[in-house]
Amino acid sequence: MSLMRQEIGEIPRSVARLLDEGADAAAVTAEAIDRARPRWVVIAGRGTSDHAAVYARYLFETCLGLPTGLSAPSVTTVYRAPIDWRGGLVLGVSQSGQSPDIVSVLTQARIGGAVTVAITNDAGSPLAEAAQHVLDCHAGVERSVAATKTYVAELVTIAALIARLRPSSSVGASLGDLPDVLDGCLDAAQGWLDGSGVVQALAGCDRALVLSRGYNLATALEVALKLKETSGLFADGYSTADLEHGPLVLAGHTVPALVFRPDGEMGKRIDGVVARLGAGAISWMVGGREVKGSTADGTPPLSLQLDLPESLTPPALVIPGQLLAEAVARSLGRDPDAPPGLEKVTLTI
Amino acid sequence: MSLMRQEIGEIPRSVARLLDEGADAAAVTAEAIDRARPRWVVIAGRGTSDHAAVYARYLFETCLGLPTGLSAPSVTTVYRAPIDWRGGLVLGVSQSGQSPDIVSVLTQARIGGAVTVAITNDAGSPLAEAAQHVLDCHAGVERSVAATKTYVAELVTIAALIARLRPSSSVGASLGDLPDVLDGCLDAAQGWLDGSGVVQALAGCDRALVLSRGYNLATALEVALKLKETSGLFADGYSTADLEHGPLVLAGHTVPALVFRPDGEMGKRIDGVVARLGAGAISWMVGGREVKGSTADGTPPLSLQLDLPESLTPPALVIPGQLLAEAVARSLGRDPDAPPGLEKVTLTI
Repeated sequence: MSLMRQEIGEIPRSVARLLDEGADAAAVTAEAIDRARPRWVVIAGRGTSDHAAVYARYLFETCLGLPTGLSAPSVTTVYRAPIDWRGGLVLGVSQSGQSPDIVSVLTQARIGGAVTVAITNDAGSPLAEAAQHVLDCHAGVERSVAATKTYVAELVTIAALIARLRPSSSVGASLGDLPDVLDGCLDAAQGWLDGSGVVQALAGCDRALVLSRGYNLATALEVALKLKETSGLFADGYSTADLEHGPLVLAGHTVPALVFRPDGEMGKRIDGVVARLGAGAISWMVGGREVKGSTADGTPPLSLQLDLPESLTPPALVIPGQLLAEAVARSLGRDPDAPPGLEKVTLTI
Repeated sequence: MSLMRQEIGEIPRSVARLLDEGADAAAVTAEAIDRARPRWVVIAGRGTSDHAAVYARYLFETCLGLPTGLSAPSVTTVYRAPIDWRGGLVLGVSQSGQSPDIVSVLTQARIGGAVTVAITNDAGSPLAEAAQHVLDCHAGVERSVAATKTYVAELVTIAALIARLRPSSSVGASLGDLPDVLDGCLDAAQGWLDGSGVVQALAGCDRALVLSRGYNLATALEVALKLKETSGLFADGYSTADLEHGPLVLAGHTVPALVFRPDGEMGKRIDGVVARLGAGAISWMVGGREVKGSTADGTPPLSLQLDLPESLTPPALVIPGQLLAEAVARSLGRDPDAPPGLEKVTLTI
C-alpha cells in the first residue's frame, strides 16, 4: 500500500486527535481574536494550504461576517508594499511552516499591528515563530509528497477555531461528528472506486475538469491539484459559477468532469451548470444523499451519508478525490508517493 | 478580419478615449473614496472581469497599502451571510454590468455601509445603478463574445482611479504613456505571431500552461481563458509561485508554457521557475527588453519596448496573448467571435 493511501486512511483518527489535543489552543486563540475585534481577515497559503485558505475564507465570511481575502504574498516579498495591517486578523497556513513568503507576510502583518495566527503541522517551524498564536494541526508526520491528511487537518483546525469563535454556528454544532462521518466516507469511497470503473476511465483521459462551488470550491481545487501531482493529469479545478464565464466550452467527451456536489441549495445550483455541459459530456458525481443517476459512461454516483452541515462537508468530500488520485496514479504505473520534480517542502520567495 | 481581431486593434484608441473622457468620473470617485477613508477593499468580478479584479488587488495593495481581497459572491447570493461592510471599499467589475451575483454583492455592500464603485462598459446597467459611483470603461460596443478591448479598458479604468488616488505612484506618473506603448505592442506582437511559428505550434497542442506572477498574474489568467474560449485549448493560467507547489510536474514536451515576463526583479523570479521546467519543456517568452534567447522549438522571444513601470504592463502584455488566441482559433478552423456554448452576457446567480 502506498504511503499516500495509508495516510488517507489515517484521516479519521488524525481528526479525532486534533479535536482533542488542539482544543485548548483553539480556545486561547479564539479568546485573543475576540479581544482584538478584527474587522477583516487575510489568509496566506500556497498550493494545498491555499485551498485550505479558500475554505477558511468562506467560514470567516459566513460564520463571522468578516470580509476575508486571500493574500498575494508577492505584494510583500517582491513589491515590498507597506500594507496598513491594523484592525486585521492574518492567518498563515503551511503544513511545513517553512515557506519564506508566507512567513514574510505573517512577520510584516504582526509588526504592522494585525492579530497573527499560524496554522501548521510543525509547531516549531519558522511560521509558528513568526505568529503570535499557533494552531498545531496534530496530523503527525506525513511521508507522501502529496499532502492528504495534513490538508484535512488544516481544514479541521480552521473549523475548530471558527467553532470556538461562534459556538452557535453550523460548524460549532457539528464538529464532533466529523471523525465518524469521515470513517464512513473512507469505506464508501473505496467501495465506489473499486466497483465503478471510474479509476480506469479517468486514467484514460489526459484532461479533466473538477467542479464544485462555495465551501467545496476548495475540494475541487485540491482534488485537481492531487490529480496533477500524482498522475500528471491536466485537471483544472473550477467553481461552476466561473465555468459559465468561458471554460464551459472545454467540457465534452474527451474532457470529463468530476463534480463534488453537496446537498441543498448549492447542490441545485451546481446541477444547473452540470446540465449545461455539452452533448457527450461525462460528469462523475460525488456528493451526499441527493446525488443520483448514472453518468453517460455508466458510472454510478458516489452518494455519501453526510450527516453534516454543508460548511463541514469539505473534509469529507475531499477523501474520495484523494483516493481517486492515488488510484489513478497507480493504474498509470506512477508512484503516488514521489511525483517527479516535486519535493515535500517548497520554499517560495 | 474577425471582430475579435478588429477589437484588439481598437485597444490603443479606446484607451486614449477612456483616459480623456473618463478623467472627471475618476477624479470625483477618488475624492469620495479619500473622504470615506476605507481600511480595506473587496473586488467582485467573474471571468475576464475577475482577472481585472486580480490586477486591481495588486494596485490597491502596492499603491495604496490597503489590504484587498476578491469577493466570493456565493457568500452573499447562496449563503446569505451578513457581512460587516463598514469601513470597506467595494468595487464591482463587469463589462455588461448585468451579472446578478455581482449586482447583489454591490447592493449588500452599499446597504451595509461600504463605499461602492461600479466599473462597467454600460453606465446604464444594473451594476451601475447598484453602486454609488460609476466608472464607465468607454470601450464602445464589443461584438465578439471573447472580451478583449473591454478587458484592457477595465484594467485602465482601475489604473486611472489609482492614479487619481495616488498621483505620486508608479501608475500615476506613467498612465498617459499607455496609448502609444499599446500601439507599438500591437505592431510588434503581430509581427512576432506572423514570423515565429508560435501559432501553428500552439494549435498543435491540446494543453498549455500560461505563466506569470504579480501584476501580470492577471495576464496569465486572462490569456489562458482566451485560449480556452476561442480555441478549446486546455490552457491553465498560473502564478509561477504556485506552479512550484505541484503543477510544475505538468510541464514537458507535450505541454508548452507561454510565459509573460516583465522586466526587473519579478522577471528574474519568473526566470528561476521557468529554468526548473522539465527537460524538453518549451517556454515561449513574451516580455520586455530583458527577454532573450530562443526556446527549444526555435521560437524567438517577443521583446516589447515597454517604457512603463511594471505596474502598468498588464494592459500591454495581454495584447500578444489576445492576438495569439485569435490566431490559434482561426488556424484550427474555429470562429473566434462565436465560441460554442457561450454568450456575450453571462448571468450568474
